[in-house]
Amino acid sequence: MLNKIETFIDNLSFPVNPVGLYEPITYSLEMGGKRIRPVLTLLAHELYKPCGEAAMNAAVAVEMYHNHTLLHDDLMDGAEMRRGKQSVHKKWNANTAILSGDTMLIEAFRLIDNCKCQRAEEARKLMIDTMIGVCEGQQYDMNFETRNDVSEAEYLEMIRLKTSILLACAAKLGAIVAEAPESDCNAIYNFAECIGLAFQVQDDYLDVYGDPAVFGKKIGGDILCGKKTFLLINALQRANAEQREELLSLINNAVILPEEKIERVTQIYNTLDIPAITQQRIAQIYDEARQHFAAISLTAEAKQPLWNFAETLLGRKS
Amino acid sequence: MLNKIETFIDNLSFPVNPVGLYEPITYSLEMGGKRIRPVLTLLAHELYKPCGEAAMNAAVAVEMYHNHTLLHDDLMDGAEMRRGKQSVHKKWNANTAILSGDTMLIEAFRLIDNCKCQRAEEARKLMIDTMIGVCEGQQYDMNFETRNDVSEAEYLEMIRLKTSILLACAAKLGAIVAEAPESDCNAIYNFAECIGLAFQVQDDYLDVYGDPAVFGKKIGGDILCGKKTFLLINALQRANAEQREELLSLINNAVILPEEKIERVTQIYNTLDIPAITQQRIAQIYDEARQHFAAISLTAEAKQPLWNFAETLLGRKS
Repeated sequence: MLNKIETFIDNLSFPVNPVGLYEPITYSLEMGGKRIRPVLTLLAHELYKPCGEAAMNAAVAVEMYHNHTLLHDDLMDGAEMRRGKQSVHKKWNANTAILSGDTMLIEAFRLIDNCKCQRAEEARKLMIDTMIGVCEGQQYDMNFETRNDVSEAEYLEMIRLKTSILLACAAKLGAIVAEAPESDCNAIYNFAECIGLAFQVQDDYLDVYGDPAVFGKKIGGDILCGKKTFLLINALQRANAEQREELLSLINNAVILPEEKIERVTQIYNTLDIPAITQQRIAQIYDEARQHFAAISLTAEAKQPLWNFAETLLGRKS
Repeated sequence: MLNKIETFIDNLSFPVNPVGLYEPITYSLEMGGKRIRPVLTLLAHELYKPCGEAAMNAAVAVEMYHNHTLLHDDLMDGAEMRRGKQSVHKKWNANTAILSGDTMLIEAFRLIDNCKCQRAEEARKLMIDTMIGVCEGQQYDMNFETRNDVSEAEYLEMIRLKTSILLACAAKLGAIVAEAPESDCNAIYNFAECIGLAFQVQDDYLDVYGDPAVFGKKIGGDILCGKKTFLLINALQRANAEQREELLSLINNAVILPEEKIERVTQIYNTLDIPAITQQRIAQIYDEARQHFAAISLTAEAKQPLWNFAETLLGRKS
């Protein structure tokens, strides 16, 4: 499935000129990554029908759109690295990230238009609604940077918009193109949305409590950059006045040694029972995912591949 | 016609939150401007049919897209003012211009999708091809900033992509939605493209030789910011070694008095016969526009409104 996606992406033919516009697009698409979203589209589609051109176009439309968001988000967030390479605005410049990013957004619409299927209009509307939601999520995320009173509900809504609904859209698109029953399309959407939420909260958890060898990123990265994670937000909500003051001064402390910062913040998390609270929330979301999965009108065996993919994603199974 | 467009834009209902995302969109759309593109869509449409919802959605899709390009281009070009007000990246910040701009691009696609007509697929393809061309034009424009060897052909191709094809797309969309014959759709496209080109070259001319009272902008602005205009490009191509050196040193001279800079550059233009060369090119493009206009299969009387609009745009008639 991954091979089919890579081949399809390799065969997208962009003009050579202007080089400054198209080279960064190829660079971004060839960075690879796990192609989680297009795989999800194809997986959901194959629950109902073998994948053809329509499914491939839908899958790669989502991947193209996702890569567009990386160019713009990395610029907005000042992120210099992406998948172990320089991000586009760093390798070229801000204008390149903006304009090549715009081109990728437009090309995503071309791919969606190339997805000829019975329910093309529904597919397009889903893409548009999702893209708007993702913009809203990014805006909330930026707003949260300067706020210390973000609630858990606000945080979950932000990550739902910023990341989960695109996974949900990817999966539902596959089902729509396969002409799956509407109730199945919705169950698949809700299932993937929950998996996305669980993944994001778990990512926050693993940043502090993960095994560095398995997690793949340095432990404590979120604490060092003062990111408003599920853990920090809950800690700020639950802390007494003294703990809250300590937390805020630690987060804003730019001279403290990194190891000490990580250790002291983690200590406060532990005191406030944040690990257990986080695990409970993940379990609850996972349970919701299971309920939505159960609502898909296929035999347990037929729909198993979708469940397996979600478990692999969440690292519950490798 | 302008009233219908303004009302339609006023009735677009965006969510309130997140305020930081939607407020700049309303700000941008309410800046007004001449609404040249949507008017052109409606004018072309009314040559064949009275305007309904489909035509309105197509017209405002083009305007929404155009405003998206203003947010991103002003940021890329560092332009602080737009229609007498602060540009979005200046009033808010760069991230706002990027993200609200992205949202407007996506909303343009929603409007195009709301344009329910027989040839919706053709309309969407035209929009996508045009948007990609506009990105290419902006890239060429940025590339030209650091080049002194841009040819007239390259320059005309750049302004064709950056500005003319969107006018052409706007007009053709109106005809497509009205189900005009394909040959008429193409003639209208080519006509509007020529008018756009003529307008742009004339804009370059008027920046130096215009009547300040009529032109509406300060004379010599392009010279002061060293913009690669039709005039400068032709002057650089036709100058002898000495004139070329003087031109380049003048353009890059940051300490010379503005009036002196304008006067000396204008003097070189005059010596090189640039005003006459420019006027000849405008006349030639205008003549091409006339030929495309003649190919529209309607009576002279029926298609007159389109010609009148073009003449008003070019200031040949007020």
